[in-house]
Amino acid sequence: MTYCVGLKIRAGLVLLSDTRTNAGIDNIARYRKMFIFEEPGERVFVMMTAGNLGITQDVVTRIETGVKRARVDPDVESVLNCESLYRAAQIVGEAMLEVQKRDRAHIEAQGSAADATVIVAGQRRGGELRLFEIYSAGNFIEASEDTPFLQIGEHKYGKPILDRVIKPDTTMEEAIKAALVSMDSTLRSNLSVGMPLDMAVIDVDTYHARTQRIEYDHPQFRQISDSWANALREAFNGLPSVNI
Amino acid sequence: MTYCVGLKIRAGLVLLSDTRTNAGIDNIARYRKMFIFEEPGERVFVMMTAGNLGITQDVVTRIETGVKRARVDPDVESVLNCESLYRAAQIVGEAMLEVQKRDRAHIEAQGSAADATVIVAGQRRGGELRLFEIYSAGNFIEASEDTPFLQIGEHKYGKPILDRVIKPDTTMEEAIKAALVSMDSTLRSNLSVGMPLDMAVIDVDTYHARTQRIEYDHPQFRQISDSWANALREAFNGLPSVNI
Repeated sequence: MTYCVGLKIRAGLVLLSDTRTNAGIDNIARYRKMFIFEEPGERVFVMMTAGNLGITQDVVTRIETGVKRARVDPDVESVLNCESLYRAAQIVGEAMLEVQKRDRAHIEAQGSAADATVIVAGQRRGGELRLFEIYSAGNFIEASEDTPFLQIGEHKYGKPILDRVIKPDTTMEEAIKAALVSMDSTLRSNLSVGMPLDMAVIDVDTYHARTQRIEYDHPQFRQISDSWANALREAFNGLPSVNI
Repeated sequence: MTYCVGLKIRAGLVLLSDTRTNAGIDNIARYRKMFIFEEPGERVFVMMTAGNLGITQDVVTRIETGVKRARVDPDVESVLNCESLYRAAQIVGEAMLEVQKRDRAHIEAQGSAADATVIVAGQRRGGELRLFEIYSAGNFIEASEDTPFLQIGEHKYGKPILDRVIKPDTTMEEAIKAALVSMDSTLRSNLSVGMPLDMAVIDVDTYHARTQRIEYDHPQFRQISDSWANALREAFNGLPSVNI
Protein backbone atom coordinates (compact mmCIF):
# COMPACT_ATOMS: atom_id res chain seq x y z
CA MET A 1 0.00 0.00 0.00
CA THR A 2 0.90 3.63 0.38
CA TYR A 3 0.17 6.63 2.50
CA CYS A 4 0.14 10.12 1.01
CA VAL A 5 -1.32 13.20 2.64
CA GLY A 6 -1.83 16.73 1.36
CA LEU A 7 -2.67 19.65 3.66
CA LYS A 8 -3.97 22.97 2.36
CA ILE A 9 -3.80 25.83 4.81
CA ARG A 10 -3.84 29.56 4.12
CA ALA A 11 -0.07 29.70 4.51
CA GLY A 12 0.57 27.05 1.87
CA LEU A 13 0.57 23.37 1.02
CA VAL A 14 2.29 20.49 2.79
CA LEU A 15 2.62 17.21 0.90
CA LEU A 16 4.06 14.00 2.29
CA SER A 17 4.35 10.50 0.81
CA ASP A 18 5.97 7.22 1.75
CA THR A 19 7.89 5.05 -0.75
CA ARG A 20 6.80 1.47 -0.10
CA THR A 21 5.01 -0.57 -2.73
CA ASN A 22 4.05 -4.18 -2.59
CA ALA A 23 2.53 -6.86 -4.77
CA GLY A 24 1.68 -9.25 -1.98
CA ILE A 25 3.57 -9.05 1.29
CA ASP A 26 6.54 -11.00 -0.09
CA ASN A 27 7.19 -8.60 -2.95
CA ILE A 28 8.06 -5.25 -1.47
CA ALA A 29 9.85 -2.49 -3.32
CA ARG A 30 10.64 1.17 -3.01
CA TYR A 31 9.25 3.69 -5.48
CA ARG A 32 8.97 7.43 -5.39
CA LYS A 33 5.31 8.44 -5.25
CA MET A 34 5.80 12.21 -5.35
CA PHE A 35 6.44 14.03 -8.61
CA ILE A 36 7.13 17.76 -8.83
CA PHE A 37 6.83 20.03 -11.86
CA GLU A 38 7.88 23.67 -11.72
CA GLU A 39 7.94 26.67 -13.98
CA PRO A 40 10.11 28.87 -11.76
CA GLY A 41 8.29 31.95 -10.48
CA GLU A 42 5.17 30.97 -12.42
CA ARG A 43 3.77 27.64 -11.30
CA VAL A 44 4.39 24.63 -9.10
CA PHE A 45 2.48 21.38 -9.55
CA VAL A 46 2.89 18.26 -7.40
CA MET A 47 1.42 14.79 -7.89
CA MET A 48 1.32 11.97 -5.31
CA THR A 49 0.07 8.53 -6.32
CA ALA A 50 -1.51 5.48 -4.68
CA GLY A 51 -2.93 2.22 -5.97
CA ASN A 52 -1.96 0.02 -8.91
CA LEU A 53 1.65 0.92 -9.71
CA GLY A 54 1.42 0.11 -13.41
CA ILE A 55 -1.54 2.46 -13.73
CA THR A 56 0.00 5.32 -11.74
CA GLN A 57 3.38 5.09 -13.47
CA ASP A 58 1.67 5.37 -16.82
CA VAL A 59 -0.35 8.38 -15.65
CA VAL A 60 2.81 10.10 -14.37
CA THR A 61 4.66 9.31 -17.61
CA ARG A 62 1.87 10.89 -19.63
CA ILE A 63 1.99 14.05 -17.50
CA GLU A 64 5.82 14.20 -17.72
CA THR A 65 5.74 13.65 -21.47
CA GLY A 66 3.19 16.43 -21.83
CA VAL A 67 5.42 18.84 -19.92
CA LYS A 68 8.48 17.91 -22.01
CA ARG A 69 6.60 18.25 -25.29
CA ALA A 70 5.17 21.62 -24.25
CA ARG A 71 8.70 22.92 -23.61
CA VAL A 72 9.45 22.29 -27.30
CA ASP A 73 6.03 23.12 -28.71
CA PRO A 74 4.09 25.74 -26.69
CA ASP A 75 0.87 24.75 -28.49
CA VAL A 76 0.90 21.47 -26.56
CA GLU A 77 -1.16 21.79 -23.39
CA SER A 78 0.53 20.59 -20.19
CA VAL A 79 -0.01 20.84 -16.46
CA LEU A 80 2.54 23.69 -16.41
CA ASN A 81 1.10 25.84 -19.20
CA CYS A 82 -2.64 25.17 -18.99
CA GLU A 83 -4.99 27.95 -17.92
CA SER A 84 -5.52 26.90 -14.29
CA LEU A 85 -4.73 24.33 -11.65
CA TYR A 86 -8.28 23.11 -12.07
CA ARG A 87 -7.50 22.40 -15.74
CA ALA A 88 -4.27 20.68 -14.66
CA ALA A 89 -6.30 18.39 -12.41
CA GLN A 90 -8.56 17.65 -15.39
CA ILE A 91 -5.51 16.75 -17.49
CA VAL A 92 -4.42 14.24 -14.85
CA GLY A 93 -7.98 12.90 -14.66
CA GLU A 94 -8.07 12.49 -18.45
CA ALA A 95 -4.76 10.60 -18.38
CA MET A 96 -6.11 8.37 -15.59
CA LEU A 97 -9.28 7.63 -17.54
CA GLU A 98 -7.35 6.73 -20.71
CA VAL A 99 -5.07 4.33 -18.85
CA GLN A 100 -7.99 2.80 -16.95
CA LYS A 101 -9.95 2.31 -20.19
CA ARG A 102 -7.03 0.50 -21.79
CA ASP A 103 -5.88 -1.63 -18.81
CA ARG A 104 -8.64 -2.08 -16.24
CA ALA A 105 -10.49 -5.06 -17.72
CA HIS A 106 -7.22 -6.90 -18.38
CA ILE A 107 -5.91 -6.25 -14.88
CA GLU A 108 -9.14 -7.38 -13.26
CA ALA A 109 -9.24 -10.49 -15.46
CA GLN A 110 -5.94 -11.44 -13.76
CA GLY A 111 -7.54 -11.01 -10.34
CA SER A 112 -5.69 -7.80 -9.49
CA ALA A 113 -7.07 -4.41 -8.57
CA ALA A 114 -6.72 -1.53 -11.01
CA ASP A 115 -7.83 1.20 -8.63
CA ALA A 116 -5.56 4.21 -8.34
CA THR A 117 -5.83 7.69 -6.90
CA VAL A 118 -3.70 10.80 -7.32
CA ILE A 119 -3.40 13.85 -5.11
CA VAL A 120 -2.49 16.91 -7.16
CA ALA A 121 -1.66 20.26 -5.63
CA GLY A 122 0.00 23.52 -6.48
CA GLN A 123 -0.42 27.14 -7.38
CA ARG A 124 -0.02 29.29 -10.48
CA ARG A 125 0.84 32.98 -10.45
CA GLY A 126 -2.48 34.82 -10.17
CA GLY A 127 -4.29 31.78 -8.81
CA GLU A 128 -5.08 30.26 -5.43
CA LEU A 129 -3.51 27.31 -3.67
CA ARG A 130 -5.33 24.20 -4.91
CA LEU A 131 -5.44 20.61 -3.64
CA PHE A 132 -7.34 17.86 -5.48
CA GLU A 133 -7.84 14.11 -5.28
CA ILE A 134 -8.32 12.32 -8.59
CA TYR A 135 -10.14 9.00 -8.67
CA SER A 136 -9.82 5.99 -10.95
CA ALA A 137 -12.79 7.28 -12.96
CA GLY A 138 -10.88 10.48 -13.77
CA ASN A 139 -13.22 12.67 -11.74
CA PHE A 140 -11.97 14.54 -8.69
CA ILE A 141 -12.74 16.42 -5.50
CA GLU A 142 -11.06 19.48 -4.04
CA ALA A 143 -10.02 20.28 -0.48
CA SER A 144 -11.92 23.17 1.13
CA GLU A 145 -11.89 25.28 4.28
CA ASP A 146 -14.08 22.64 5.93
CA THR A 147 -11.90 19.77 4.71
CA PRO A 148 -8.38 21.17 4.51
CA PHE A 149 -6.63 17.84 3.93
CA LEU A 150 -6.82 14.89 1.55
CA GLN A 151 -5.34 11.44 2.06
CA ILE A 152 -4.83 8.46 -0.25
CA GLY A 153 -3.77 4.88 0.49
CA GLU A 154 -3.70 3.73 4.12
CA HIS A 155 -5.46 6.83 5.39
CA LYS A 156 -7.18 5.69 8.56
CA TYR A 157 -4.34 5.33 11.07
CA GLY A 158 -3.14 8.88 10.47
CA LYS A 159 -6.51 10.60 10.25
CA PRO A 160 -7.32 11.20 13.95
CA ILE A 161 -4.44 13.63 14.51
CA LEU A 162 -5.31 15.57 11.34
CA ASP A 163 -8.96 15.74 12.39
CA ARG A 164 -7.87 17.31 15.65
CA VAL A 165 -5.15 19.69 14.45
CA ILE A 166 -5.57 20.88 10.86
CA LYS A 167 -7.62 24.05 10.31
CA PRO A 168 -7.28 26.65 7.55
CA ASP A 169 -5.37 28.96 9.92
CA THR A 170 -2.94 26.29 11.14
CA THR A 171 0.62 27.58 10.74
CA MET A 172 3.05 26.06 8.26
CA GLU A 173 5.22 24.84 11.13
CA GLU A 174 2.26 23.04 12.72
CA ALA A 175 1.11 21.60 9.39
CA ILE A 176 4.56 20.11 8.74
CA LYS A 177 4.58 18.54 12.20
CA ALA A 178 1.02 17.24 11.80
CA ALA A 179 1.84 15.58 8.48
CA LEU A 180 4.89 13.89 10.02
CA VAL A 181 2.97 12.72 13.10
CA SER A 182 0.17 11.40 10.87
CA MET A 183 2.77 9.47 8.83
CA ASP A 184 4.53 8.26 11.99
CA SER A 185 1.29 6.74 13.34
CA THR A 186 0.72 5.01 10.00
CA LEU A 187 4.28 3.67 9.79
CA ARG A 188 3.98 2.20 13.29
CA SER A 189 0.68 0.43 12.65
CA ASN A 190 0.94 -0.73 9.03
CA LEU A 191 3.84 -2.59 7.46
CA SER A 192 2.72 -1.75 3.94
CA VAL A 193 3.75 1.87 4.49
CA GLY A 194 7.51 2.44 4.79
CA MET A 195 10.41 4.85 4.94
CA PRO A 196 11.95 6.86 3.38
CA LEU A 197 9.49 9.73 2.99
CA ASP A 198 9.25 12.55 0.47
CA MET A 199 8.07 15.91 1.70
CA ALA A 200 7.24 19.01 -0.33
CA VAL A 201 6.34 22.35 1.22
CA ILE A 202 4.86 25.12 -0.90
CA ASP A 203 4.54 28.53 0.74
CA VAL A 204 1.68 30.59 -0.67
CA ASP A 205 2.61 32.84 -3.62
CA THR A 206 6.13 31.44 -4.03
CA TYR A 207 5.33 29.00 -6.90
CA HIS A 208 8.10 26.81 -5.61
CA ALA A 209 8.30 23.54 -3.66
CA ARG A 210 10.92 23.07 -0.98
CA THR A 211 11.56 19.33 -0.86
CA GLN A 212 13.24 16.87 1.40
CA ARG A 213 13.79 13.14 1.29
CA ILE A 214 13.47 11.88 4.85
CA GLU A 215 15.47 8.71 5.47
CA TYR A 216 15.04 6.50 8.53
CA ASP A 217 17.88 8.23 10.39
CA HIS A 218 16.73 11.79 9.58
CA PRO A 219 17.47 13.48 12.93
CA GLN A 220 14.46 15.81 12.97
CA PHE A 221 12.00 13.10 11.97
CA ARG A 222 13.44 10.78 14.62
CA GLN A 223 13.04 13.59 17.14
CA ILE A 224 9.39 14.12 16.15
CA SER A 225 8.73 10.40 16.27
CA ASP A 226 10.39 9.90 19.67
CA SER A 227 8.94 13.09 21.18
CA TRP A 228 5.47 12.11 20.03
CA ALA A 229 5.80 8.61 21.50
CA ASN A 230 6.90 10.08 24.84
CA ALA A 231 4.29 12.83 24.81
CA LEU A 232 1.50 10.33 24.03
CA ARG A 233 2.71 8.13 26.86
CA GLU A 234 2.66 11.08 29.26
CA ALA A 235 -0.71 12.28 27.98
CA PHE A 236 -2.10 8.78 28.42
CA ASN A 237 -0.69 8.44 31.93
CA GLY A 238 -2.27 11.78 32.84
CA LEU A 239 -5.79 10.67 31.93
CA PRO A 240 -8.29 10.26 34.76
CA SER A 241 -9.27 6.74 35.79
CA VAL A 242 -12.63 5.25 34.90
CA ASN A 243 -14.58 3.01 37.26
CA ILE A 244 -16.36 0.16 35.54
CA MET B 1 -19.82 -0.52 10.47
CA THR B 2 -18.74 -1.30 13.97
CA TYR B 3 -15.76 -1.08 16.25
CA CYS B 4 -15.12 -3.71 18.90
CA VAL B 5 -11.88 -4.23 20.75
CA GLY B 6 -10.75 -6.91 23.19
CA LEU B 7 -7.63 -6.57 25.34
CA LYS B 8 -6.05 -9.49 27.16
CA ILE B 9 -3.57 -8.58 29.86
CA ARG B 10 -2.37 -10.68 32.78
CA ALA B 11 -4.76 -8.84 35.10
CA GLY B 12 -7.82 -9.66 33.01
CA LEU B 13 -9.86 -8.87 29.92
CA VAL B 14 -11.28 -5.55 28.75
CA LEU B 15 -13.96 -5.64 26.06
CA LEU B 16 -15.56 -2.61 24.42
CA SER B 17 -18.06 -2.30 21.58
CA ASP B 18 -20.05 0.46 19.95
CA THR B 19 -23.73 0.08 19.00
CA ARG B 20 -24.09 1.60 15.52
CA THR B 21 -25.16 -0.47 12.55
CA ASN B 22 -25.93 0.72 9.07
CA ALA B 23 -27.20 -0.62 5.80
CA GLY B 24 -26.04 2.28 3.66
CA ILE B 25 -25.44 5.65 5.26
CA ASP B 26 -29.16 6.53 5.22
CA ASN B 27 -30.21 3.50 7.22
CA ILE B 28 -28.60 3.71 10.62
CA ALA B 29 -29.76 1.82 13.67
CA ARG B 30 -28.60 0.94 17.14
CA TYR B 31 -27.95 -2.67 18.13
CA ARG B 32 -26.13 -4.21 21.04
CA LYS B 33 -23.03 -6.03 19.78
CA MET B 34 -21.85 -7.41 23.11
CA PHE B 35 -23.39 -10.56 24.58
CA ILE B 36 -22.44 -11.95 27.98
CA PHE B 37 -22.98 -15.47 29.31
CA GLU B 38 -22.13 -16.39 32.89
CA GLU B 39 -22.18 -19.43 35.11
CA PRO B 40 -21.56 -17.61 38.41
CA GLY B 41 -18.25 -18.55 40.01
CA GLU B 42 -17.52 -21.03 37.21
CA ARG B 43 -17.30 -19.35 33.83
CA VAL B 44 -17.77 -16.09 31.99
CA PHE B 45 -18.03 -15.93 28.20
CA VAL B 46 -18.41 -12.74 26.14
CA MET B 47 -19.10 -12.33 22.41
CA MET B 48 -18.75 -9.13 20.35
CA THR B 49 -19.88 -9.09 16.74
CA ALA B 50 -19.11 -7.19 13.53
CA GLY B 51 -20.21 -7.50 9.93
CA ASN B 52 -23.47 -8.63 8.36
CA LEU B 53 -26.12 -8.14 11.07
CA GLY B 54 -28.39 -10.95 9.86
CA ILE B 55 -25.48 -13.37 10.05
CA THR B 56 -24.25 -12.25 13.47
CA GLN B 57 -27.73 -12.19 15.01
CA ASP B 58 -28.29 -15.76 13.88
CA VAL B 59 -24.92 -16.84 15.32
CA VAL B 60 -25.73 -15.18 18.65
CA THR B 61 -29.20 -16.74 18.71
CA ARG B 62 -27.71 -20.19 18.18
CA ILE B 63 -25.28 -19.67 21.06
CA GLU B 64 -28.05 -18.33 23.34
CA THR B 65 -30.35 -21.22 22.42
CA GLY B 66 -27.57 -23.69 23.20
CA VAL B 67 -27.06 -22.16 26.65
CA LYS B 68 -30.81 -22.24 27.39
CA ARG B 69 -31.19 -25.83 26.21
CA ALA B 70 -28.16 -26.93 28.26
CA ARG B 71 -29.75 -25.47 31.40
CA VAL B 72 -32.65 -27.91 30.91
CA ASP B 73 -30.68 -30.83 29.48
CA PRO B 74 -27.05 -31.05 30.73
CA ASP B 75 -26.19 -33.44 27.88
CA VAL B 76 -26.50 -30.53 25.45
CA GLU B 77 -23.09 -28.90 24.89
CA SER B 78 -22.99 -25.12 25.23
CA VAL B 79 -20.38 -22.37 25.55
CA LEU B 80 -20.98 -22.43 29.33
CA ASN B 81 -20.63 -26.19 29.94
CA CYS B 82 -18.12 -27.28 27.28
CA GLU B 83 -14.69 -28.51 28.33
CA SER B 84 -12.71 -25.33 27.57
CA LEU B 85 -12.87 -21.80 26.24
CA TYR B 86 -11.09 -23.14 23.17
CA ARG B 87 -14.01 -25.51 22.61
CA ALA B 88 -16.43 -22.61 23.20
CA ALA B 89 -14.67 -20.69 20.42
CA GLN B 90 -15.06 -23.74 18.19
CA ILE B 91 -18.80 -23.84 18.97
CA VAL B 92 -19.13 -20.22 17.85
CA GLY B 93 -17.05 -21.01 14.74
CA GLU B 94 -19.31 -23.96 13.91
CA ALA B 95 -22.42 -21.77 14.29
CA MET B 96 -20.80 -19.15 12.02
CA LEU B 97 -19.97 -21.76 9.38
CA GLU B 98 -23.51 -23.18 9.39
CA VAL B 99 -25.08 -19.75 8.96
CA GLN B 100 -22.58 -18.81 6.25
CA LYS B 101 -23.23 -22.05 4.37
CA ARG B 102 -26.96 -21.41 4.38
CA ASP B 103 -27.00 -17.65 3.66
CA ARG B 104 -23.78 -16.51 2.01
CA ALA B 105 -24.54 -17.27 -1.63
CA HIS B 106 -28.02 -15.74 -1.35
CA ILE B 107 -26.69 -12.59 0.34
CA GLU B 108 -23.95 -12.14 -2.25
CA ALA B 109 -26.43 -12.73 -5.07
CA GLN B 110 -28.21 -9.60 -3.77
CA GLY B 111 -24.96 -7.63 -3.97
CA SER B 112 -24.46 -7.47 -0.20
CA ALA B 113 -21.53 -8.66 1.89
CA ALA B 114 -21.94 -11.67 4.14
CA ASP B 115 -18.65 -11.30 6.00
CA ALA B 116 -18.84 -11.33 9.76
CA THR B 117 -16.38 -11.66 12.62
CA VAL B 118 -16.83 -12.39 16.30
CA ILE B 119 -14.51 -11.69 19.21
CA VAL B 120 -15.01 -14.21 22.00
CA ALA B 121 -13.34 -13.99 25.36
CA GLY B 122 -13.62 -15.29 28.87
CA GLN B 123 -12.32 -17.67 31.47
CA ARG B 124 -13.47 -20.92 33.09
CA ARG B 125 -12.49 -22.02 36.59
CA GLY B 126 -9.20 -23.90 36.22
CA GLY B 127 -8.42 -22.31 32.85
CA GLU B 128 -6.59 -19.26 31.56
CA LEU B 129 -7.95 -16.00 30.27
CA ARG B 130 -8.68 -16.50 26.54
CA LEU B 131 -9.37 -14.06 23.72
CA PHE B 132 -10.23 -15.24 20.19
CA GLU B 133 -11.34 -13.76 16.88
CA ILE B 134 -13.61 -15.95 14.77
CA TYR B 135 -13.77 -15.42 11.01
CA SER B 136 -16.56 -15.95 8.48
CA ALA B 137 -15.05 -19.34 7.62
CA GLY B 138 -15.52 -20.49 11.22
CA ASN B 139 -11.78 -20.70 11.91
CA PHE B 140 -10.16 -18.43 14.47
CA ILE B 141 -7.02 -16.90 15.93
CA GLU B 142 -6.09 -16.25 19.54
CA ALA B 143 -4.49 -13.24 21.20
CA SER B 144 -1.02 -13.86 22.62
CA GLU B 145 1.63 -12.13 24.73
CA ASP B 146 3.01 -10.63 21.51
CA THR B 147 -0.43 -9.57 20.29
CA PRO B 148 -2.45 -8.84 23.40
CA PHE B 149 -5.43 -7.25 21.65
CA LEU B 150 -7.88 -8.08 18.87
CA GLN B 151 -10.08 -5.66 16.98
CA ILE B 152 -13.01 -6.14 14.58
CA GLY B 153 -14.83 -3.66 12.34
CA GLU B 154 -13.31 -0.20 11.87
CA HIS B 155 -10.03 -1.14 13.54
CA LYS B 156 -7.50 1.20 11.97
CA TYR B 157 -8.24 4.58 13.60
CA GLY B 158 -7.96 3.16 17.09
CA LYS B 159 -4.97 0.87 16.56
CA PRO B 160 -2.04 3.33 17.01
CA ILE B 161 -2.76 4.00 20.69
CA LEU B 162 -3.13 0.26 21.41
CA ASP B 163 0.14 -0.47 19.59
CA ARG B 164 1.86 2.01 21.86
CA VAL B 165 0.24 1.21 25.20
CA ILE B 166 -0.97 -2.38 25.52
CA LYS B 167 1.51 -4.95 26.84
CA PRO B 168 0.79 -8.11 28.86
CA ASP B 169 1.74 -6.32 32.09
CA THR B 170 -0.41 -3.24 31.43
CA THR B 171 -2.63 -2.60 34.45
CA MET B 172 -6.39 -3.01 34.33
CA GLU B 173 -6.82 0.71 34.92
CA GLU B 174 -4.59 1.52 31.94
CA ALA B 175 -6.24 -1.09 29.74
CA ILE B 176 -9.69 0.40 30.42
CA LYS B 177 -8.41 3.87 29.55
CA ALA B 178 -6.65 2.59 26.40
CA ALA B 179 -9.81 0.89 25.16
CA LEU B 180 -11.81 4.08 25.70
CA VAL B 181 -9.18 6.28 23.99
CA SER B 182 -9.03 3.84 21.07
CA MET B 183 -12.83 4.04 20.75
CA ASP B 184 -12.79 7.83 21.12
CA SER B 185 -10.36 8.19 18.19
CA THR B 186 -12.58 5.93 16.08
CA LEU B 187 -15.79 7.78 17.00
CA ARG B 188 -14.21 11.10 16.02
CA SER B 189 -12.96 9.92 12.63
CA ASN B 190 -15.67 7.54 11.41
CA LEU B 191 -19.41 8.21 11.37
CA SER B 192 -20.26 4.52 11.04
CA VAL B 193 -19.17 3.95 14.64
CA GLY B 194 -21.42 5.50 17.27
CA MET B 195 -22.40 5.86 20.91
CA PRO B 196 -23.52 4.41 23.25
CA LEU B 197 -20.79 1.92 24.13
CA ASP B 198 -20.87 -1.37 26.00
CA MET B 199 -17.92 -2.22 28.21
CA ALA B 200 -17.17 -5.48 30.02
CA VAL B 201 -14.27 -5.91 32.40
CA ILE B 202 -13.24 -9.38 33.57
CA ASP B 203 -10.67 -9.54 36.35
CA VAL B 204 -8.57 -12.71 36.24
CA ASP B 205 -9.95 -15.65 38.25
CA THR B 206 -13.26 -13.96 39.08
CA TYR B 207 -15.35 -15.67 36.32
CA HIS B 208 -17.51 -12.57 36.24
CA ALA B 209 -17.92 -9.58 33.95
CA ARG B 210 -18.45 -6.12 35.35
CA THR B 211 -20.41 -4.24 32.70
CA GLN B 212 -21.35 -0.72 31.90
CA ARG B 213 -23.39 0.94 29.17
CA ILE B 214 -21.67 4.21 28.37
CA GLU B 215 -24.06 6.83 27.00
CA TYR B 216 -22.97 10.04 25.32
CA ASP B 217 -23.18 12.03 28.56
CA HIS B 218 -21.32 9.45 30.70
CA PRO B 219 -19.26 11.82 32.87
CA GLN B 220 -16.10 9.67 33.03
CA PHE B 221 -16.08 8.93 29.31
CA ARG B 222 -16.58 12.64 28.56
CA GLN B 223 -13.69 13.41 30.90
CA ILE B 224 -11.43 10.86 29.14
CA SER B 225 -12.46 12.20 25.75
CA ASP B 226 -11.91 15.85 26.68
CA SER B 227 -8.71 15.20 28.61
CA TRP B 228 -7.30 13.21 25.70
CA ALA B 229 -8.16 15.97 23.23
CA ASN B 230 -6.43 18.56 25.42
CA ALA B 231 -3.44 16.34 26.17
CA LEU B 232 -2.95 15.55 22.47
CA ARG B 233 -3.12 19.26 21.69
CA GLU B 234 -0.48 20.01 24.31
CA ALA B 235 1.68 17.07 23.25
CA PHE B 236 1.48 18.27 19.67
CA ASN B 237 2.34 21.86 20.59
CA GLY B 238 5.35 20.61 22.52
CA LEU B 239 6.88 18.83 19.50
CA PRO B 240 10.11 20.25 18.08
CA SER B 241 9.94 22.11 14.76
CA VAL B 242 11.21 20.56 11.53
CA ASN B 243 13.02 22.59 8.89
CA ILE B 244 12.12 21.57 5.36
